[in-house]
Amino acid sequence: MNESFGSRLRARLDECGPLCVGIDPSPALLHTWGLDDSPAALERFCRTVVEAVADVAAVVKPQSAFFERWGSRGIAVLERTIADLREAGTLVLLDVKRGDIDSTMAAYAEAYLDKGSPLAADAVTLSPYLGFGSLEGAITSAMANDAGVFVLARTSNPEAAGLQRLVAGQVLAGAAAANAGHAPFGPVGVVMGATLPELEHSLDDLNGPILAPGLGAQGATPADVARLFGSVRHAVLPSVSRAVLSDPKLVRSRTLRYRDECAAHLAADAR
Amino acid sequence: MNESFGSRLRARLDECGPLCVGIDPSPALLHTWGLDDSPAALERFCRTVVEAVADVAAVVKPQSAFFERWGSRGIAVLERTIADLREAGTLVLLDVKRGDIDSTMAAYAEAYLDKGSPLAADAVTLSPYLGFGSLEGAITSAMANDAGVFVLARTSNPEAAGLQRLVAGQVLAGAAAANAGHAPFGPVGVVMGATLPELEHSLDDLNGPILAPGLGAQGATPADVARLFGSVRHAVLPSVSRAVLSDPKLVRSRTLRYRDECAAHLAADAR
Repeated sequence: MNESFGSRLRARLDECGPLCVGIDPSPALLHTWGLDDSPAALERFCRTVVEAVADVAAVVKPQSAFFERWGSRGIAVLERTIADLREAGTLVLLDVKRGDIDSTMAAYAEAYLDKGSPLAADAVTLSPYLGFGSLEGAITSAMANDAGVFVLARTSNPEAAGLQRLVAGQVLAGAAAANAGHAPFGPVGVVMGATLPELEHSLDDLNGPILAPGLGAQGATPADVARLFGSVRHAVLPSVSRAVLSDPKLVRSRTLRYRDECAAHLAADAR
Repeated sequence: MNESFGSRLRARLDECGPLCVGIDPSPALLHTWGLDDSPAALERFCRTVVEAVADVAAVVKPQSAFFERWGSRGIAVLERTIADLREAGTLVLLDVKRGDIDSTMAAYAEAYLDKGSPLAADAVTLSPYLGFGSLEGAITSAMANDAGVFVLARTSNPEAAGLQRLVAGQVLAGAAAANAGHAPFGPVGVVMGATLPELEHSLDDLNGPILAPGLGAQGATPADVARLFGSVRHAVLPSVSRAVLSDPKLVRSRTLRYRDECAAHLAADAR
C-alpha cells in the first residue's frame, strides 16, 4: 500500500460514492439503542455500525471524544474499531481536532498517522488555532505514511462564524499551498460545514478533499451540499452521523439512501 | 472539597508560589534520561517528575499527546499519573487543547472535568477555534465540578501570530464575561505565551488566571513574564517543562529555582 491518501480516497469515492459516516456514540444515542452507558455497550454500538456501513461508506469517521470519556478502556474500544474498519477496507478518518506546537504536534502525528501506532488512521482532523504553520510537521508525517489530514476551516456550528470568518482564508491558502502539484488530491483536506449559507472563499485552487459535516440532523440536504460547493462538488465528502445512526435496524438502509442521494447531486455532470 | 477552582488555585499559589511544571515525556526527553521509548518508561518518567515537583509546583500540567502516542496503554499511564498528582495534593492541569461542538464537547467535558472520570483533572486547556460560544457547555461543567478551563488566546509559537492576532480579542472578551462576579478568580483562565513581545490586549478585566507557557527552553525568563503581564502579574502561572526536566537528578532543584525566581518577580509589590 504505497498509494497516496489522495489516490486511495479518489478510488474509494469512485467505487462507493461520496458519503462519510460519523461514529458518534453519545450517551443519548446509546440510550436510544437500548444500550447502557458502558465500554461494552460502546463496543457493541461500534461493531454494529461497522458491519452496517463499512462497504457502502467511502469513509468512516469515529469521534474520539466519545471514546475518551472512558479513559484507557474507551481508547481500547477505539483501537478495535479502527482495526475493524481498516480490515473491512473502508478509509478511517479519526475526528480528533488536534493542534499544538513542535514536539507535541509530532507526538499527535505519531499517535494517529504513523502506521505502527495502535490508533493509526487513514486521516485525522486538525485544528489550526496555533497557526497553519504549526501543522507542517503533521502534514509531512501524513505524506510519509500515505495518510491525510483535514484542517478545520469553516465548521458547521453557528458559534464559529465570528472567529472563523476572520481566519478561514489563511487556512484555505495554507492548504492550497501544501497541495500544489499533487494528483488527484493533495494530502490536506479542509472542513467546511454543509450548513453554511455561502462559501465566502473560493475552493477552486484547493486541490484537496473537502469534508462537509452537517448533513441530516444539523439540517443540510444533499441538494444543499451540491449548491454550496458548485464547481468543486466532485471533491466533497458530505458527512452524516445522527440521521443514519438513530435506529440500529435502519443504519444500513439510511446510509444507502444518503449515499445515493449525495452521489446523484454531487456527480460532475449533475445540474 | 466544594471550593471553586479559583479558590483552590489562589490558595495553592499563596502556599507554593506561582509555578506550573509541564510533564512532556517526548521520545527525545526519554532518551536523554537513558530510558527506552515504551509505556513502562513513560510511567517511570512520570513517577519521577511527580515525586520531584508535586509539593513545590502550584500546578502540574501533563501533555496528553505524549500519552496518546501509546494508545490505550499510554492513556492508562496518564490515568495513574493524574491519580498520583491528585493524591499528592497538587492541582492537575491536563493539556489537551480540545474544542468541538455540542454533544462532542460535552463528551470531552465528561472525560476531563467530571469527578467520576478516570481522567478527571482540576482543569484542562481548550481551543476556541469553533468559537468561544462552543465552549459554554464545558465551562458550565467545569463550574459544576469545581474545576477550571484555560482557553487558548495567544500561544507562544511564532506560527500563531497571523491567526491569533485577529481573534484573541474575542477569546479574552468571552473569558472576561464568563468570569464576571467570581472571586478570587472565575473558572475561565486563558493561555498567553510568555514569549510574546507585548500583550496587545488588556487583561485588566479578565478576572481569571493566566497560563503563560514559554519559560525556559522557549526563551522567556521570569523577568520577561513580570514585565509582559505588568498589573495582572499576580494572576500569572508561568509554565516550564524542558528546562527543568532535562536531567532527572536536577528536576527538583531546577523547579525550586524557577519557582523562587518567578515568586520574586511576580509578587504584587515587586518593582
